[in-house]
Amino acid sequence: MDISAFFPVWNNLEESDRNALNAAAIDRTFFKGEILHRSSEECTGLILVRSGQLRAYTVSPEGKEITLYRLLDGDICLFSASCIINSISFDITLSAEKDTAVTVVAADVYKRIMKKSAPLSNFTNEIMASRFSDVMWLVEQIMWKSFDKRLAEFLMEESNIEDSLTLKITHETIGNHLGSPREVVTRMLKYFAGEGLVSLSRGTVTLSDPVRLAALARD
Amino acid sequence: MDISAFFPVWNNLEESDRNALNAAAIDRTFFKGEILHRSSEECTGLILVRSGQLRAYTVSPEGKEITLYRLLDGDICLFSASCIINSISFDITLSAEKDTAVTVVAADVYKRIMKKSAPLSNFTNEIMASRFSDVMWLVEQIMWKSFDKRLAEFLMEESNIEDSLTLKITHETIGNHLGSPREVVTRMLKYFAGEGLVSLSRGTVTLSDPVRLAALARD
Repeated sequence: MDISAFFPVWNNLEESDRNALNAAAIDRTFFKGEILHRSSEECTGLILVRSGQLRAYTVSPEGKEITLYRLLDGDICLFSASCIINSISFDITLSAEKDTAVTVVAADVYKRIMKKSAPLSNFTNEIMASRFSDVMWLVEQIMWKSFDKRLAEFLMEESNIEDSLTLKITHETIGNHLGSPREVVTRMLKYFAGEGLVSLSRGTVTLSDPVRLAALARD
Repeated sequence: MDISAFFPVWNNLEESDRNALNAAAIDRTFFKGEILHRSSEECTGLILVRSGQLRAYTVSPEGKEITLYRLLDGDICLFSASCIINSISFDITLSAEKDTAVTVVAADVYKRIMKKSAPLSNFTNEIMASRFSDVMWLVEQIMWKSFDKRLAEFLMEESNIEDSLTLKITHETIGNHLGSPREVVTRMLKYFAGEGLVSLSRGTVTLSDPVRLAALARD
């Protein structure tokens, strides 16, 4: 296995450490809908996304969900290996939104090298800061932004990710991303449809006026 | 200046680095209500809290606030030195909730040493993970908002049963009553304490503001 492409600091690692990391890496494939990781107790390992799309989210005791961030090609998930850092005291759930090819690096090997390698530790810091920034953005969205803008922004993001104006997505799934009940999503989508921003049919949302949707999202 | 007490990894740093960090440290005092840090562009430096209480919060474009976490004696604020990590793309505001004595470590010196020192980099990672955990907890509170009410209700009930505002009860026992892990109870009780709802000492929880607790429970 060669995982060097995921690590900008690869050439700053010692050769023995590079070899140990490669030896601790295993390729796996997950099908759309599969859950890769559920609890911090699992410490599945560092997940490197080779292709596909993962969703990181948190689940309430009652089963409600909200999306924290997405992981795409080249991204690394640290929190699937949360045992490498003692102070991580939260759980995320990771599921495949598309068929996804990943490489999993054993947490104990990564941790051993990170503990003694300043380059790897600093790189790990950057990964965490990047996810932290995603979550801070989410906090600000939840706290300050009204639901219509969040929904418009979500539709624009999805459209970018899918590279299509027609999204195959249910109102319930949208609700899970945004942490909102399905009824709230349906109501707002109907309002958007009435305004000519989207058109709705069973299982799809089509962005009819992406320019105005983008303006609403930015607002 | 001797800042060693703030760094559990102090003895694992090189002597020249320890000297450089001490030389880059300046004591400052902030009065209750003063703002220590406002934007990531300032890169004020690493703030070490010697005594007092700081509040880290985020402010909306309209001036609304939400508390992210508190910093007490012995705590370190990393995000007042966010320029040390490239991927931090959010701002926090820091203000003094009590008269507060801090030591500020120059960001450029800290960054230079962190980049080459695995122990300091790993410790920085732990600080960030700890704050990240605080913010994830907040996200869950904001989104699901049930445990605080259940805990408030439980404390009111216990107080009625015991006919006392001081409850001799461990966090573990409360967790057992509510079907929640001890850590979750501890964290929420600390949050309540920060809000002035309860005061905590070993083996006891005192209801400092039963009127507001009752309102929270009913809410």
